[in-house]
Amino acid sequence: MRFGLFHILQAGARAENRPIAAKGLTGTGYDGHTFWDTESFVLPVLTYTQPSAAADALRWRHIVLPEARRHAADLGLAGAAFPWRTIRGQETSGYWPAGTAAFHVNADIADAVIRYLDATEDTEFEREIGLELLVETARLWRSLGQHDAAGWFRIEGVTGPDEYSAVKDNNVYTNLMAQRNLSCAAEAAVRLTDVAEALGVTTEETASWRDAAAAMYIPFDERLGVHPQHEGFTDYARWDFANTPEDHYPLLLHYPYFQLYRKQVVKQADLVLAMHLRPDAFSAEQKASNFAYYEPLTVRDSSLSACTQAVIAAEVGQLDLAHDYLAEAALMDLRDVEHNTSDGVHMASLAGAWMALVAGFGGMRAGAGSLTFSPQLPGGITELRFRLCYRGRKLRVTITPGRARYELLDGEPIAVVHHGKEFQLGKRPNEHDIPKVKVGPRPAQPARRAPGSRSWADQLAASLRAGRG
Amino acid sequence: MRFGLFHILQAGARAENRPIAAKGLTGTGYDGHTFWDTESFVLPVLTYTQPSAAADALRWRHIVLPEARRHAADLGLAGAAFPWRTIRGQETSGYWPAGTAAFHVNADIADAVIRYLDATEDTEFEREIGLELLVETARLWRSLGQHDAAGWFRIEGVTGPDEYSAVKDNNVYTNLMAQRNLSCAAEAAVRLTDVAEALGVTTEETASWRDAAAAMYIPFDERLGVHPQHEGFTDYARWDFANTPEDHYPLLLHYPYFQLYRKQVVKQADLVLAMHLRPDAFSAEQKASNFAYYEPLTVRDSSLSACTQAVIAAEVGQLDLAHDYLAEAALMDLRDVEHNTSDGVHMASLAGAWMALVAGFGGMRAGAGSLTFSPQLPGGITELRFRLCYRGRKLRVTITPGRARYELLDGEPIAVVHHGKEFQLGKRPNEHDIPKVKVGPRPAQPARRAPGSRSWADQLAASLRAGRG
Repeated sequence: MRFGLFHILQAGARAENRPIAAKGLTGTGYDGHTFWDTESFVLPVLTYTQPSAAADALRWRHIVLPEARRHAADLGLAGAAFPWRTIRGQETSGYWPAGTAAFHVNADIADAVIRYLDATEDTEFEREIGLELLVETARLWRSLGQHDAAGWFRIEGVTGPDEYSAVKDNNVYTNLMAQRNLSCAAEAAVRLTDVAEALGVTTEETASWRDAAAAMYIPFDERLGVHPQHEGFTDYARWDFANTPEDHYPLLLHYPYFQLYRKQVVKQADLVLAMHLRPDAFSAEQKASNFAYYEPLTVRDSSLSACTQAVIAAEVGQLDLAHDYLAEAALMDLRDVEHNTSDGVHMASLAGAWMALVAGFGGMRAGAGSLTFSPQLPGGITELRFRLCYRGRKLRVTITPGRARYELLDGEPIAVVHHGKEFQLGKRPNEHDIPKVKVGPRPAQPARRAPGSRSWADQLAASLRAGRG
Repeated sequence: MRFGLFHILQAGARAENRPIAAKGLTGTGYDGHTFWDTESFVLPVLTYTQPSAAADALRWRHIVLPEARRHAADLGLAGAAFPWRTIRGQETSGYWPAGTAAFHVNADIADAVIRYLDATEDTEFEREIGLELLVETARLWRSLGQHDAAGWFRIEGVTGPDEYSAVKDNNVYTNLMAQRNLSCAAEAAVRLTDVAEALGVTTEETASWRDAAAAMYIPFDERLGVHPQHEGFTDYARWDFANTPEDHYPLLLHYPYFQLYRKQVVKQADLVLAMHLRPDAFSAEQKASNFAYYEPLTVRDSSLSACTQAVIAAEVGQLDLAHDYLAEAALMDLRDVEHNTSDGVHMASLAGAWMALVAGFGGMRAGAGSLTFSPQLPGGITELRFRLCYRGRKLRVTITPGRARYELLDGEPIAVVHHGKEFQLGKRPNEHDIPKVKVGPRPAQPARRAPGSRSWADQLAASLRAGRG
C-alpha cells in the first residue's frame, strides 16, 4: 500500500496544472497520455489524502476546456467533450468507438469535481473552476441525449468503461453518471447564480438539466433481476470461456473486436463500477444480484477492474474474494502481473488498492450528505488502519475483527455513520461493534480468470516482518 | 433504359468467372472492387434477361469460397464470410464496422443463387455451385446468431444495407435474408442428399438451420406499427433535417459517423429493401406503414436507394413518386446526378432502373412458387413493355393504362399470376384489366431531399422522339 501511495504522490502531489498520466512519470506506457483513470481512480485517493493535488489536476482540465469545447462542436454537441486520451487537451485517440465515444470521461471529471467539493467545501474552487466544469459537461449530456416518445431521456451510441463493448445504447454506468452530472450542475448553478449567469446559464437551461436527470432511462432486465450493462446486453450470447485458452488473454490480442462487442464478456468493471460510484441507485438486493451476474463474465484484461470488484465484493459480503482482488490490484506492479511494469506502474491500480481497503473493507462512502463507513474485515487481516481528510478534519479509522474505532485527529466534531447509525465524532475516540455479515456462495469467475493466489503477498509480508524485505 | 441495359451487359455478359465490379469496367471508382451491389442489383436483371451471365458471376463467388472460409475462421465463425469489397476474394475493406460487419452480403449471394435457381431450374448449377454456396452461408448465419432465453434466434452486432447505421442488433433486413438463406439451404440439402453429404452436412445440421430460421427474431415496434430498421432504431432521435443545409449532403462528408449511427437517418433503402426482397414477410398494411415511416428519414446519399424506393412506392400505390425515383435511378449517369460519372457508371443504379420498371410498375415477383405481376402505370407513361426469361420461357409483358397484355414468345405454357389471379399463359396472348389503385397522400422526404424533377427526362425523351437526340 505504501509503494502505491508513494507513486500516487510522486505523480500527483506536484502536478501543478498539468495532467496526471496513466503511468505517472514512471514509464513510456500509453505515451504519457492521461485518461479517465486519473479522475476515477487516482483523484479519489488524492481527494481524501492530499486534496490540493486533486484540485490541481482538475485545474488542468479547466485549462484545457477550450480544446474540449472545440471537440464538442466538431461532433455537433454543446458544452465540452473531453478527450479520451491526451497530453495537452486535444483528442489523440485514433479509434473513435473506444475513444471519443467513451463520453463517460466527461461525467467522471464532473464526478471528481463533485467529490472534491463534498470533501473540501472549497467554495473558491467551486466558483473559479468547479461550476464551469459541471456546466460544460452538463451541456454535453443534454445535447448528447434525447427524450423518447415515452418521456425517457436516452443516451445512444456511446461506450462505457468496459472496452469489450462499444457504441451501445443506454450504458447504465454512463446514464447514471450523466444523471448526477446534470443534477449537480443544476444545483450548483442555482447556488452560484452570479457565476452561472456569467457562463450564460439560464433558469430554462437548469430546468432542462433537472428534467433530463429525473427522466434518465436506466434499463433493467426483469427476467434476470439484474441491470444489463447496456440496453440488450443480457440478451447477447455469453463468451465461450470454457474454450478460451489461458494464453488467449488478453482477449483483445487474440479475437476481433467484432466478436468481443457482441457477446457477454466484460474487460473491466462497468456496471459494478456504477454500483460503487452511484450506490444510491441500487438496492442492496440489486447489488448482490448484479455482482453475482457480472463476476462470471468479467475477465479483468484491464488493470482498472480488480480494485472495483474488491470494493463491491466487500459490500456484498464476499470478503475473501475482495481480499484476493485487493492483492491483485496492490501487487500489479510489485509482482509484474501483466508483464509490463517496465512500461511504467499502473497508477490507477495502485490507487484502486487504497480504494479497495478504504471503500472496500472500510466501506467508506461520502457525497450523499454524510461520511459513512460499513467496515468488514476478511480472514487474514487482523487490523486495518487508515487516515483520511474530510471537510477540514483528519480522521483515523482502525478496524479489527468485530470492532471499529473512529478517531478525530484534527478539526471540529463531525457526524459519522457506522453501519447505518449516525454518531458525533468529537475529541474522544468512538468504538462500535461490526455486525456479522451473511455470506452467500462465492461467485465464480470465467474459467482460468479467478484472481491469483495471495500466497506471494503472504510471503512478501512475512519477509517484510522478518526484516528481510 | 437501353443505356443501362447496354452497360449491364458490357459488365456482365462476358464476366466468365470474374467478378462484376461496382463500376463494371467503365472507370476507376471503387478501385475496381465488387460489392453486394452485384448480387442484389445487377444479378436480378441478368437472371431474368441473360441468366448464363448471372450463373457466371456466381461461379466466381464459388471460386473464391476458400478465401471466404478463411475469413470466417479468422472471425471465429463457421462456413464462409464473403468480403465486403474485393477483386480476388480477400476482404479489402479497411473499416470493419461498415465492411466485414455488413454480413448481409452473404445472404445476398445466397439470395442470388436462390433467385437464379428459381428462374432457371438449372439443376447442374445447383449441384456444382449453388448448394455449396447455400450451405456455407447458412453455416455462417448459424454460427453468427444465437438463441436467447426466450428461444428467439438473434443476430447481434452487424451492419445492414444502410451505411448510416453500423454494428446494430437484429437488423430486420439481415435477419429476414438470413432466415431465407437458412431455410433454403436446408431444403436444398434434403433435395440433394449426395452432394450435401459430400459437403459434410448432417441431418442434425439441417435441422439446426430450419430451427434457427423458424425462430428468427424480427423486431416490431407495436407503438408505431412499423418495423424498426434494427432493434431500438425507432427510439433514436431523428436527424435534424430542417437544419441540415443542402450543401452538407452527402452527410458522411460533413458529419461524424458517431452522430449518423445514433440517429434516425437512413442513407439508403434498408427496411424498404427487405420489403422488396422478402415480400412474404410483410402484410400489405405493414408495407404501406413502413414505407411511409422510412420515406422522411431516407436521404439517398447512395445510388443503391432510389430504385428500391421506386419498387416499393409502386407497390404501395405511390405511382408518381415511384416515377420520380425511376427517373433518378435511370438518369444517375446520363445526367451525372452525383457529379462522379467520370469515376465510372453506377451499375447497380442502372440495373435498379430496370427493376423499378419491371418489379415496380410491372409488379413482378418470383420465387414463392409462381411468377406474379401486379402492374400499375403512373401518369406520364402511356405504355411499358418488357421481356423476360423465366424457366426456359420467353415472355413479353405490355402494360397500358388499365390493361396488361401477357405473351409467351417461346417455350411451354406456364402459370402466371396477374394481380392475385392465376391464369395459364400459352400460345395466345392474354389480356387483363388492371384494378384501380387507391392512392394515399404522397409521403414527404427529408427537407431538400425529394427526388429531382423529371423535366430533364421529359426533354430528353422529346428530343429523342424528334430525332434530335
